[in-house]
Amino acid sequence: MASNNHFFEGAEKLLEVWFLRTEDGQDLRDIAREDWEEVLKTVRCQIISTMKNDSQDAYLLSESSMFVSDRRFILKTCGTTLLHNALPLMLDLAKKKCGFHVVEDIFYSRKNFMRPELQHNMHRSFEEEVIILEKLFEDGAAYCLGRMNGDCWYLYTTNNPDSSKPGQAEPDQTLEILMMDLEPDAMKLFHKNSIDPAEIAKLSGIADLEPGTIIDDFLFEPCGYSMNGLLPDGAYMNIHVTPEKDFSYASFETNVSKKSYANLVKRVLNVFKPGRFVMTLFANMTSEVYPGDSTFEDKIFDYQRQDWQASKFSNYYLTFCNYAKVKTKPS
Amino acid sequence: MASNNHFFEGAEKLLEVWFLRTEDGQDLRDIAREDWEEVLKTVRCQIISTMKNDSQDAYLLSESSMFVSDRRFILKTCGTTLLHNALPLMLDLAKKKCGFHVVEDIFYSRKNFMRPELQHNMHRSFEEEVIILEKLFEDGAAYCLGRMNGDCWYLYTTNNPDSSKPGQAEPDQTLEILMMDLEPDAMKLFHKNSIDPAEIAKLSGIADLEPGTIIDDFLFEPCGYSMNGLLPDGAYMNIHVTPEKDFSYASFETNVSKKSYANLVKRVLNVFKPGRFVMTLFANMTSEVYPGDSTFEDKIFDYQRQDWQASKFSNYYLTFCNYAKVKTKPS
Repeated sequence: MASNNHFFEGAEKLLEVWFLRTEDGQDLRDIAREDWEEVLKTVRCQIISTMKNDSQDAYLLSESSMFVSDRRFILKTCGTTLLHNALPLMLDLAKKKCGFHVVEDIFYSRKNFMRPELQHNMHRSFEEEVIILEKLFEDGAAYCLGRMNGDCWYLYTTNNPDSSKPGQAEPDQTLEILMMDLEPDAMKLFHKNSIDPAEIAKLSGIADLEPGTIIDDFLFEPCGYSMNGLLPDGAYMNIHVTPEKDFSYASFETNVSKKSYANLVKRVLNVFKPGRFVMTLFANMTSEVYPGDSTFEDKIFDYQRQDWQASKFSNYYLTFCNYAKVKTKPS
Repeated sequence: MASNNHFFEGAEKLLEVWFLRTEDGQDLRDIAREDWEEVLKTVRCQIISTMKNDSQDAYLLSESSMFVSDRRFILKTCGTTLLHNALPLMLDLAKKKCGFHVVEDIFYSRKNFMRPELQHNMHRSFEEEVIILEKLFEDGAAYCLGRMNGDCWYLYTTNNPDSSKPGQAEPDQTLEILMMDLEPDAMKLFHKNSIDPAEIAKLSGIADLEPGTIIDDFLFEPCGYSMNGLLPDGAYMNIHVTPEKDFSYASFETNVSKKSYANLVKRVLNVFKPGRFVMTLFANMTSEVYPGDSTFEDKIFDYQRQDWQASKFSNYYLTFCNYAKVKTKPS
């Protein structure tokens, strides 16, 4: 376990909000950088770097990432940040600056923290986080996937099969791989001074995860690594690495569309070599991966699937699995 | 909500334990009634009535039911009973009286309580219950199915895909329907003095749920109803009804083997007419219902499925759903 002297909570709080377009031309990218900076100040993180393409703006943050497209907002922050502070401000900006009045879908999720007691009250327990979300959203449902007495993953999302919201569901899918107990040798790259920062993506294999990815990355002092990637057709990728042995953690997230993620998953595992990992896949019915079963094999390399859970929501099919290296019995 | 003056927690704590047979002739039914009475005393319930057939002994309890077969033990208790007290005593009896040393599978489950604050410490939260179970079992995994901010259902079970236990998996399946907001008219039958107790099963439709069921039932003073049913081939059924309007609850459980439970579910709903219900189905791979999808349609009568979740465990496939009556919008 982590020492009391030095600890960093790598596990991110992840928020994704989709707005319902009611007028032509509504676009969250009309919100000015200064406005986003005000929002992020309340979360306690800063913008380190930005890049953009036709479909979205990607912000590399001092604690993780933010992606803004016409009607979708993604904010992911790690450590002891106060992500929930962003919500009312962001909803207000979307309304005032872009005329977005209706939230079509919201997803708030995170893995269980290694040290929840170090979080601020607002994020110390999922129950507390849900109480805050329930003040802002209707039809929100809170779930715990995986093991309450092991690795689990919390989700709050709008889910009301009774209401027939119009919806504007283009194909959408999100894969997340949350990795723990990373191999120390593989982590050497993510420490300052050991390597030319510009080479990390290449040497680690991150640059080759998905061909055509434009990368914006950052190596922290004395260690830690963040990367945003932009791909064609509105796809993104992000990676965040906490390499310290006592509390190592790395996350991979992408919405790139694929029929199966089996090979991409293997490439990611080859970069970080975790001892165990949690994997989630959201797929809506028009996505080409739907429902996504082939991504979650019984065994991947020498990892044995420990849990498989699936959930149907109003607009999405979710699969959750966790994997751990098979323990070889002493002979 | 329930008034402070009178409340009864209908939702049961349900324990099912399977032992691994290591010698011929091992049989939990060799345990004497006096021994079970000692166990049940610590749980704070008594035996009201018993019946048996070739494959199992069924005990009707002051708070729900107990079923004992050669290597399977089921204890289900409602109210503020202390089910966890039974566990070490039962494991000890199984060892001393029958030579059962190895637990093959354990399932502890319950719906979230309406008023958890009225439970004794041991059962006030699922987290607390799990801590107690972890002292007794290895490889136990704790789950929360359904909505943490609504109707949910907790499960603790052995689940370790890494370990290759021998197992003696005959076909096995368990269906549970946990019903809330029962129609007051349908509840009249389950009050004393309104009807001849011997007629309840017939008049309510309970006697016709499954042909060939031998019934042992009891009507409580002033209200409340419990029923054990025995069927051929090791099958059982039990029903428990808390009819009071402010906190009405009824449970149905059976392990009768079927290709689909869709029709049986409809017969049960017709008896109790709930406003909403939770339904779970465990099916192992040799059961004829496996995996059980046809039991969980999008709509059943005018009930809309609110959640669908599935989980794969070492030996079982579990489906969890909750349903609620579609709210008709005021015109």
